[in-house]
Amino acid sequence: MVELSAALEGQCNKVLAATVPSPIRVVDDKFSQIDGILKLTLGEPDFAAPEHIKQAIIRDVQANDSHYSPSQGIMPLREAISDYLVERFDTPRYDPATEISVTVGAAEAINAAFQALFNPGDELIIPTPTFPLYESVAQTSDIKVVGLNTAPDFIVTPEKLKHVLAEHPNAKAILLNYPSNPTGVTYSEDELKELVAILREHQLLVIADEIYAELVYDAKHTSMARLLPEQTVLISGVSKSHAMTGYRIGYAVGPAKLMKQVGKAHQSMLATAPGPMMAGALEALRNGREDPVKMRAVYEERRDLVLKGLAEAGFTAARPGGAFYIFAKIPEFLNTNDIEFVYDLADSVKLGVAPGSIFGAGGEGYIRISYAASTEDLESAITRLKHYVDLTR
Amino acid sequence: MVELSAALEGQCNKVLAATVPSPIRVVDDKFSQIDGILKLTLGEPDFAAPEHIKQAIIRDVQANDSHYSPSQGIMPLREAISDYLVERFDTPRYDPATEISVTVGAAEAINAAFQALFNPGDELIIPTPTFPLYESVAQTSDIKVVGLNTAPDFIVTPEKLKHVLAEHPNAKAILLNYPSNPTGVTYSEDELKELVAILREHQLLVIADEIYAELVYDAKHTSMARLLPEQTVLISGVSKSHAMTGYRIGYAVGPAKLMKQVGKAHQSMLATAPGPMMAGALEALRNGREDPVKMRAVYEERRDLVLKGLAEAGFTAARPGGAFYIFAKIPEFLNTNDIEFVYDLADSVKLGVAPGSIFGAGGEGYIRISYAASTEDLESAITRLKHYVDLTR
Repeated sequence: MVELSAALEGQCNKVLAATVPSPIRVVDDKFSQIDGILKLTLGEPDFAAPEHIKQAIIRDVQANDSHYSPSQGIMPLREAISDYLVERFDTPRYDPATEISVTVGAAEAINAAFQALFNPGDELIIPTPTFPLYESVAQTSDIKVVGLNTAPDFIVTPEKLKHVLAEHPNAKAILLNYPSNPTGVTYSEDELKELVAILREHQLLVIADEIYAELVYDAKHTSMARLLPEQTVLISGVSKSHAMTGYRIGYAVGPAKLMKQVGKAHQSMLATAPGPMMAGALEALRNGREDPVKMRAVYEERRDLVLKGLAEAGFTAARPGGAFYIFAKIPEFLNTNDIEFVYDLADSVKLGVAPGSIFGAGGEGYIRISYAASTEDLESAITRLKHYVDLTR
Repeated sequence: MVELSAALEGQCNKVLAATVPSPIRVVDDKFSQIDGILKLTLGEPDFAAPEHIKQAIIRDVQANDSHYSPSQGIMPLREAISDYLVERFDTPRYDPATEISVTVGAAEAINAAFQALFNPGDELIIPTPTFPLYESVAQTSDIKVVGLNTAPDFIVTPEKLKHVLAEHPNAKAILLNYPSNPTGVTYSEDELKELVAILREHQLLVIADEIYAELVYDAKHTSMARLLPEQTVLISGVSKSHAMTGYRIGYAVGPAKLMKQVGKAHQSMLATAPGPMMAGALEALRNGREDPVKMRAVYEERRDLVLKGLAEAGFTAARPGGAFYIFAKIPEFLNTNDIEFVYDLADSVKLGVAPGSIFGAGGEGYIRISYAASTEDLESAITRLKHYVDLTR
């Protein structure tokens, strides 16, 4: 241990110092202290990365890829991203040389985009409930967050969008994350087209975080990069689609004039992503197009299992069209709030779920359940939840 | 290609938009267009990563380490960093749980430290010539950079330090990078102790970038984390010591009250470093203590080879005590400046070296030669340089 010189205390960045650690981590850490707890709190696939991706990484390490890669990522990966987006989501063909940056996870892409595309005081509309990272990164970048509460259907409707724009006529951008973490809700093409008309009229910049695009169950994912490429910076990656969260490869794509700046922010932030991890992502996008299909089928079964169990326990949930989250309303008869509920649930039946209110306005009274867990664990979770309800009601 | 909507042009972050791309990359890109050029511009080992480190990564990938790691890095690696710093540099024992963050290269550690430890307008003293990243990250973090020209000996002396502190009494911090990129100059323990007395008196925060600590030739490296731990955040990593730049594992250590904030900035920036790359760094620090010793012996021979050749060609250089750079003064008789010189050298004898002025005040009239290249290439480089001088004088 090292004692900080007393004269240097309290001099850290005030904005950052005032932010609390990622609330989902705080909840998760508390749960981790309960023996035998079953946690459905984390947003990552329970699958291991596919074997062919692991082998590609191993080959790359064996081939001595231990030197710096180009700052925006190895060119074959940038080409693979360009091809993948065209072939899978019918986007325009992004130029690998000027319109694509490979990042360390989608998180870094969000940081680089926020740092590059905003000036202090710019207004960014963030629909809630939402992944808390956006707001904390916006705060440290001195971006003014305009919240847009989407409860109870968790969709940005044309009416809600028009309303927030009337109240904030100078808003510069909107963040759209769909399928959504934490709600699992996504948009149909028709719903998006209605929004696009308004976004075009107002010339809003769109930061589209579509990291869950491969996990859409009932229809095909429609990308903002197809509908509104001239105003969109698309954030995505292979973490969720190919169960390789720990390898940390994401990307940002968009018009060259924006990506020139995003790429600068990225280069300044960490020079370049690790070469062997990029080799894994290249394999995922070139030869792993079927990997998400198989995982999706499993997730869909689990989703239906959990939805059925929740309904039997008296919980209602908007039908999640994507990702691996269910955002469920705590029944009135339990007469509690979501924070009290999740801690009581953890204490009494050793089941850990995330309280909805940590995801912002509109999340109060809800819980987020991640069904990126084994079928056995999910069945046990439902049994525990039902038992809790029986004990309590 | 995607055309940006005209209404969205010119709205990017103004500070970032005004920064030029990393100047060393610009020079390097121009050189790359010259057929048959021999480049001594890059700051990375030419060695491949040691085999035992590659095998540790491969085992980790095979063991399905494809999930998120803890945000501050896997605990065994944090423990290894703590042990390594004590055993190798006689620092205090940093607490792995609260005083160490594993980052994506030292570059990310610098970003996280700057973001966490400064408020807008805070003054940071940066001795020059220096690695340009510090200033560009400082700019985007709204930190006011106070330059401290160290030419011609490239050492921060007590007199120079007192002088800059008298002129900038509100300076909050100083960045010390030694052994230095670009000069290769480093400090003796006695020299550092004189500085420490002043730094302690003024209660200056020290950001000590000691990434080249394992590449010190004529004495043992003395860490600021040993001499002044209560005021120091140490930045380092295994990229240069173990020839694993492309794996991108760095770290920051310091008093818990500072590291709590640095860790938050890191977590918000990219969640966590990739697991398999951390497994490689763990192997490097636990079982690779001899790796830098072998590489250092080779670098030292190369340094002496280049120094001798430079002297024969009429160039003088401060004797570099560490890293793998020589900062050499262009002889007066060539009657040129460093920018003209490096382009003319590249055109006429196809030798690429970095112009000193891109490293800031004090670098004008110098060139930086990286001797992280094969002995054969270095011999050829000296031959070309002598030929150029013969042609020109």
